[in-house]
Amino acid sequence: MKLSDGVEQSIHSIAMLASLEEHQVLSAAALAEFHGVSQSYLLKHLQALSRSGILGTVPGPKGGYHLEQSPDEISLFDVVLAVEGPEPAFRCKEIRRNGPNPASESYFIAPCQISADMLRAERSYHDELRKVKIAHLLAKVQRDDDGTLAARSCAFLDANARTSRQTRIQQPR
Amino acid sequence: MKLSDGVEQSIHSIAMLASLEEHQVLSAAALAEFHGVSQSYLLKHLQALSRSGILGTVPGPKGGYHLEQSPDEISLFDVVLAVEGPEPAFRCKEIRRNGPNPASESYFIAPCQISADMLRAERSYHDELRKVKIAHLLAKVQRDDDGTLAARSCAFLDANARTSRQTRIQQPR
Repeated sequence: MKLSDGVEQSIHSIAMLASLEEHQVLSAAALAEFHGVSQSYLLKHLQALSRSGILGTVPGPKGGYHLEQSPDEISLFDVVLAVEGPEPAFRCKEIRRNGPNPASESYFIAPCQISADMLRAERSYHDELRKVKIAHLLAKVQRDDDGTLAARSCAFLDANARTSRQTRIQQPR
Repeated sequence: MKLSDGVEQSIHSIAMLASLEEHQVLSAAALAEFHGVSQSYLLKHLQALSRSGILGTVPGPKGGYHLEQSPDEISLFDVVLAVEGPEPAFRCKEIRRNGPNPASESYFIAPCQISADMLRAERSYHDELRKVKIAHLLAKVQRDDDGTLAARSCAFLDANARTSRQTRIQQPR
């Protein structure tokens, strides 16, 4: 079981976008360069974050991405959901229905007990991810920063943030 | 993020093996037929369960698998760990070290806050999986059974359980 590398890249990108000022955007190219990752791979995930309503986009060659939601609204679960999709990690194939001597249909009205317990555990994972908001992460990073990390981000933003008065487009959810 | 189908197949197989009497084993072929799944795929996972100490094996053409641990010791987490391996779902690539202007090494002594929070949530998932033992699952299934499911399992075991006085071999962990 493995989460896509897009989860890590998305959280870091959102954390960076949280520092933008109003009307500013960052391009996928700039975010990919800062994080030293493939632009095409990151772009796929930025588009997923946009479709899920976490990011907004300004189209065109001078456009880019910005946060559509506040950092204290966006949870780690929101990011995982946007990147990984809604399917659970445990996907019951109902193999109890298989084989040469399956039980009668009446037993399959209730979900398999195995599936029920696997999914209950998964919900507690999601609940923990929901508790952590991007704003919490940023506060912890800032608490441990002597100014160096902030200066690094500021230098990047000074060089790459684009001011756009264009109407920001929110993707249909 | 997806758990291998081997998790579902392994849990069902362990539940069936829990009904064996002393000195009985079931072959991978019989377990695969009962569950209507690929024998070679199931075999791979039975071997992993054996390596992890959950199953024991009796070698040879009349051999097979049996539980090496008690159903009230084997948790859903044990099965997931055996099938999926010990790597976490979130695998931090430390992308904060990347890019044209990485922060100084002193910042990378502590784990990335993102990784720390992702892994903390994952631990709560594992903790929930640890709470559910195979014995709990079996008790719930038996509670809802009017005898039909038990009869189905008994018919299968009567036809397929092999009695073996051979020394059972526990795989090295």
